Amino acid sequence: MVEGATVVFKPEDKKAKTPIGSTVFQAAKEAGVHIRSECGGKGLCGKCRVTIKNSDAVGEVTEAERKHLCQSEIDSGARGVIIPPERQVAPRQIQVLGLERKVELNPAVKKVHVLLPKPTLSDIRPDLERLLDELSLQDQNVATLEIDYEILKQLPNILRFANWDVTVTVWDDHRIVAVEPGDTATNLFGFAVDIGTSKIVGHLVDLTSGKTIAIGSIENPQIIHGEDVMTRVTFATVNDADLETLQELAVEGVNKVLHEACAKVSIDPCRIYNVIVVGNTTMHHFFLGIQPKYIAISPFTPAIKRQTNIAAKELNIETNPRCLITFLPIIAGFVGADAVADLLATGICEFDELTLLIDIGTNTEIFVGNKNDVLCCSCASGPAFEGAHITDGMKAVTGAIERVRINSDLEVECKTIGHVKPTGLCGSAVIDVVAEMLKREIINGQGRFNPQMKLGRLRKKGGETKFVVVWGDETATGKEITVTQKDVREIQLAKAAIHTGCSILMKRKKLREEDLDRLFIAGTFGTYINLENAKYIGLVPDVPTNKVRFVGNTAVMGAKMALTSKGMREKSELISKKVRYLELGNDPDFNQEFTKALFLRPQKIKVDTYKRNF
Amino acid sequence: MVEGATVVFKPEDKKAKTPIGSTVFQAAKEAGVHIRSECGGKGLCGKCRVTIKNSDAVGEVTEAERKHLCQSEIDSGARGVIIPPERQVAPRQIQVLGLERKVELNPAVKKVHVLLPKPTLSDIRPDLERLLDELSLQDQNVATLEIDYEILKQLPNILRFANWDVTVTVWDDHRIVAVEPGDTATNLFGFAVDIGTSKIVGHLVDLTSGKTIAIGSIENPQIIHGEDVMTRVTFATVNDADLETLQELAVEGVNKVLHEACAKVSIDPCRIYNVIVVGNTTMHHFFLGIQPKYIAISPFTPAIKRQTNIAAKELNIETNPRCLITFLPIIAGFVGADAVADLLATGICEFDELTLLIDIGTNTEIFVGNKNDVLCCSCASGPAFEGAHITDGMKAVTGAIERVRINSDLEVECKTIGHVKPTGLCGSAVIDVVAEMLKREIINGQGRFNPQMKLGRLRKKGGETKFVVVWGDETATGKEITVTQKDVREIQLAKAAIHTGCSILMKRKKLREEDLDRLFIAGTFGTYINLENAKYIGLVPDVPTNKVRFVGNTAVMGAKMALTSKGMREKSELISKKVRYLELGNDPDFNQEFTKALFLRPQKIKVDTYKRNF
Repeated sequence: MVEGATVVFKPEDKKAKTPIGSTVFQAAKEAGVHIRSECGGKGLCGKCRVTIKNSDAVGEVTEAERKHLCQSEIDSGARGVIIPPERQVAPRQIQVLGLERKVELNPAVKKVHVLLPKPTLSDIRPDLERLLDELSLQDQNVATLEIDYEILKQLPNILRFANWDVTVTVWDDHRIVAVEPGDTATNLFGFAVDIGTSKIVGHLVDLTSGKTIAIGSIENPQIIHGEDVMTRVTFATVNDADLETLQELAVEGVNKVLHEACAKVSIDPCRIYNVIVVGNTTMHHFFLGIQPKYIAISPFTPAIKRQTNIAAKELNIETNPRCLITFLPIIAGFVGADAVADLLATGICEFDELTLLIDIGTNTEIFVGNKNDVLCCSCASGPAFEGAHITDGMKAVTGAIERVRINSDLEVECKTIGHVKPTGLCGSAVIDVVAEMLKREIINGQGRFNPQMKLGRLRKKGGETKFVVVWGDETATGKEITVTQKDVREIQLAKAAIHTGCSILMKRKKLREEDLDRLFIAGTFGTYINLENAKYIGLVPDVPTNKVRFVGNTAVMGAKMALTSKGMREKSELISKKVRYLELGNDPDFNQEFTKALFLRPQKIKVDTYKRNF
Repeated sequence: MVEGATVVFKPEDKKAKTPIGSTVFQAAKEAGVHIRSECGGKGLCGKCRVTIKNSDAVGEVTEAERKHLCQSEIDSGARGVIIPPERQVAPRQIQVLGLERKVELNPAVKKVHVLLPKPTLSDIRPDLERLLDELSLQDQNVATLEIDYEILKQLPNILRFANWDVTVTVWDDHRIVAVEPGDTATNLFGFAVDIGTSKIVGHLVDLTSGKTIAIGSIENPQIIHGEDVMTRVTFATVNDADLETLQELAVEGVNKVLHEACAKVSIDPCRIYNVIVVGNTTMHHFFLGIQPKYIAISPFTPAIKRQTNIAAKELNIETNPRCLITFLPIIAGFVGADAVADLLATGICEFDELTLLIDIGTNTEIFVGNKNDVLCCSCASGPAFEGAHITDGMKAVTGAIERVRINSDLEVECKTIGHVKPTGLCGSAVIDVVAEMLKREIINGQGRFNPQMKLGRLRKKGGETKFVVVWGDETATGKEITVTQKDVREIQLAKAAIHTGCSILMKRKKLREEDLDRLFIAGTFGTYINLENAKYIGLVPDVPTNKVRFVGNTAVMGAKMALTSKGMREKSELISKKVRYLELGNDPDFNQEFTKALFLRPQKIKVDTYKRNF
C-alpha cells in the first residue's frame, strides 16, 4: 500500500489521494464524499453501489465486489468513480421544530455586570474577594461560588485591563465561568441540540429572551460508520480509537450545526455559555466517549443515568471554552435523553390526560401514562421508514416519492419531494404503497401478493413478485421504482415492532385504545406519514384523528426548554427517575404479541388464527 | 549564535552544548549546574564569580564581566569552567519538622470499598447509579456526588474488569476522583508541601493513620531566577513565558520532593489523592501561574485570598491525575498560606495566651494576639540571614560557620557545619559576629567600627574597615573570612525590619514585652540562631528565655494538619478571614520606629538621640 492513486468522484469532482489497495469506500471518505452505507463500509449491505466509469481504475472485480462495490480496491490512475446521487448522504427534510411549552425564563447560566471599587492601601481586598463582595451586593449567593482555574489565572489582568468594569458569567449559581471587560450582559446565548442517529438539529437561543434566533441541522456524520446504532456500536467495540472516531464525529456534527446557526445571525460562538444536548443512550455514550458495548448486550446497562455537565474544552465543543455542555439524563439503555426531552416538551408527566407518545425513528420510543405514572419501552423498528433495507428506498430528500395513492382503477398517483422526476420511495411512501395495496387487495393481511390478481404492474422474477410504482420512463434514473415482497416484509417487521410496543405497554397499564385522551406522534418520519394509512396497517393505534397530534422534533424543543429554565432541567432529572422502563424482550407476552402484530390488519384477526396463517 | 561550544563544568564534569555567545550562566543552567545568583543571571549581583581555567573558552573579558562572570560569553571549544563550591546551590540544612498539634483524623479524601450486585434484566440500573446506591448504603451522602469525567468514561470497563468489586475515592464528600479494582482502601496517601522562597519541604502522609511516613526537601529550583522574591517577580513580569517558567520550576520542585519521599517508602505517587500546598503569596501566584506583579506594587493586591482546589493534571503535579491540589488560603500580599499554616500549627488563634510569632525568612511574618484577635504584618528582612549580600556569607551548608564567639582576649572561636575547614559565614554566624563585636566594643551601638580599637583582626582597606573572623591559612579556600562595615549594615537593616514589625504590632495591640505569654520563633533560620545574641542586638524582643520556643517549620506542619483534618482546612479559611493585616509601610510611626531599630541596642537608646546619632 505504498503506491498512490488519485480517485475523482463525479459529479462533484472531489479528489482523493489514496494508497493502491484502498476500497472505494475509504477513498470516498478521504475525499469527503459521503457514501451511504448501512454496514459502515464492511461490504455487507450492498447500498453503496457505484458506477465505475473507468474500469481500469478498479482492480479485478470479485463476485463479492460486484454486489458490494464499496469493497472494490483501487489501482493506480483511478479516475471517474461515480456514486449515484441517491446513494450519497444528501441534505434532507429534517424536522427542526416541534411542540414547545412556554417556560419561565431562568437559565442556569447568568450574567452580572459589576463596577468594582479600585484597590487602595486602605482597601487591600484581593481581586477575587473584591469581585465576590460586589456580586453579593447584587444578590448573588457567593458563599459557595467557585471560579474556573483558567479565569482565576487571568483575573488580575482582566480586571485592570477593564478598569474594574466587568461582566461575570455564573454557571448554576456555583461557578464563575467567564469574566469579560465592560457590560456584555445582553450577549448571553445557549445552544440546544438533538443528536439523532441520522440527523443533528440545534437551536441557537438568546438566553435574555428565551427565543430561538437561528437553527442549524445536518446529517449525523457518524453515518459513514453505519446507518443504524448497532452497526456503529459494533464498530466502536473493536478498539478504543474507533470509539474516539465516533466521538469526534459526533462533536464535529454538533460544532457544524452550532457554527451554521451562529453564522446565520453573526453571533460569536464564544458567547455561548451553555449547551444542552439530548440524544438516545448510544449517541449519549458516543458523544461522551463512553464505551457503549454494554448497552448493546443483555442486560443493556448504560454507564450513567443522570445529567452530565462537562466543560466545552474537554469535549472540543467550539463555544466559550468554559461553557458547560449538559447532556440531559437518560431513562434506560434504549430510552435516552431525547425521550426525556420528548416528555418535557409534551408535558405528559405533568397532566391528567392519558397520553400515548410514539417517537418514531430507527429506534422507536413509546410512552403511555399521565402525571401519576408513565411507562415506556423502546422497539427496534429499524431503518425501513428511513428508506433503508427497501429495494428502491431512499431518505426524504428531493426526488423521493413521499405520498402514493392507488385509485379504484388500480392506477398509481405519486407526490414527489421537490416536484422533480422521482428517484425512489421514502418511508411514508412505502407505508402508503403497502396500505393502498392492502385496500385494493393486491396483497392480503399476511402481506402476500394476491396470486389471483392480474395486473401489468405486478411482475414476477425468480420466484419473487414485485409491484411497479413508477415506470422506468417516468423516473430520474430511467429504472423502474418497485416494491417487492421483501419490502412488504420489512414494513411488516418495522410496524410489528411498534405495534407490539404499544400493545404491551397498554396491557401493562391496563388500558384500552378508547381510554387514551391523546396520541402524540413525534419525530421527522412521524410528521410526514399519512395517518389514515398508518392506522390502517396497524402502525399506530386506531384512535380518532381528532385525538392525534403530530408534535414534530420534541427532542430539540425539550432540550431548549431545559436550556432556558433551570426548573425544566430539574424536571428532566425527575422524569429520568420516575418514568418506568419496560424491557420488551423480557415481557412474557412479547412473542405472541409480535407474531400477531406482523399481520397488516391485526385488529381484524382472531388470536387463534395467527400461527396457522403466519 | 549558530556555532556551538561544549562547556565542561568542573569538578562535576557536567557538560553543556551551548551556542557561542551564550553566557556562562546560561550554559550552567543548560548543564544542570546551579550557579547561585541573586540577580537571576542579569549580571548585577556578582555572586556567580567563576574561575576560568582555560581563558580561550571565554571571549575577551570586559570590565563588567570581570565582576559578574555569569555574563561572560562563551567562544568555541570552551573547556573547564569551574564554579567554586560555595557559589553552587548545594543541599543545605533544611528544617523539615516543626511544632505540630494533634488533630482528629478526618481527611478530605476518603476511600470506600464496595461490592456491587451485578446487573440483570430485573436490575438494569446504570453503572454510576448502581455505584452511588451502594455508596449510600455505606453512609455516604451521594445526593450531590459528582464524578470526574475521565472516571465516568472508564467506569463501564473498570467495573466489569474488577468484577464489580471496587474501591471508590471521594473528594470532600462531593466528587468521585478514582474507582480502582479490588480493595485498595488502605492505600490512601496525601502530601503536605511548603514552597519556601529558598526551599521546598514535603511530608508524605498515610491518610489512614495521619502519620508522616517520608519527607522530601530541596532548594527551590526557581532560585536560578533570583534568590529573593522581588527579583523573581520582576523576571515574571516581562512576559508570560517567564511566568510560565517560574510556574514550571515550582511544579518541578514539588514533583521532586514528592518523588523523593515516595521513593523512600516505595509508594506509587498515583496513590496520592490530595496535596496541601502552602507558601508565601508570591510562591502561591507562581505555583498557580497567576501574574504576581500586582502583589509587588502598591496597594499590593493578590488575585485570590481563599483556598484553591485544582486537579493535579491541570498543574502537572505527578500524583494521581485527579488528585486535588489544595493551596491553603492567604492573608494578604505579603502574608501567605505559609503564615496561615504557622497559625494552624501553633494554635495562636485558638488559645488564651498572648503570643508573638516571628517566622524569619527573606520575608519575615510577625503575628501577635490570641483567640480574640490576631494582628500581623510582613517585613522585608531580606536575604542577609541566608548569607546573601554578606561579603563572605553563604547558606547553612557544610563548610559554613554557624556559631562565633569572641572571648575576652578578643580571640575568635568558631563552629563549622560538618566539622571541616570553613568556607564562609551563614546567617546565624554573622549575627553572632555582630553581637560579639558589640559586646567587646569592636563596634558601637550604631554599628560603626571603634576607631580607637587596635587589633590585628581589624583591617582597613580603601576607607572600609573589616574584621577577620578566620585567617586565610585556616579556611578551605585559603582566603580570609571577614565581616565588613557593609555586612554589619546589612544585618542592621535586616534586624531593624523585624524589630520595627514587632514594635509597631505591639503598639497597635497596646502591648508591652512583659505582657507576652509566649514568643514563638519559626523558620529554618530561626531554629539555628543564638537566642541570647539575637535578643542582644534587638533582632527579637527581650522576653525571658523560658517563654521562648523555637517551633521549626510550622508551615509544613500546618499544611499536614490541613491534610489530615477537614476541620483544620476549614479553620485555615477562618484564620485567613479573621487575622488582621497591617501594612507596615502605611503606618504613621514606621519611619521613626525603623530609624530607632537600626541601632544595635535600641532598647538602650533614648528616643531623642536617634536622629542626631544616625
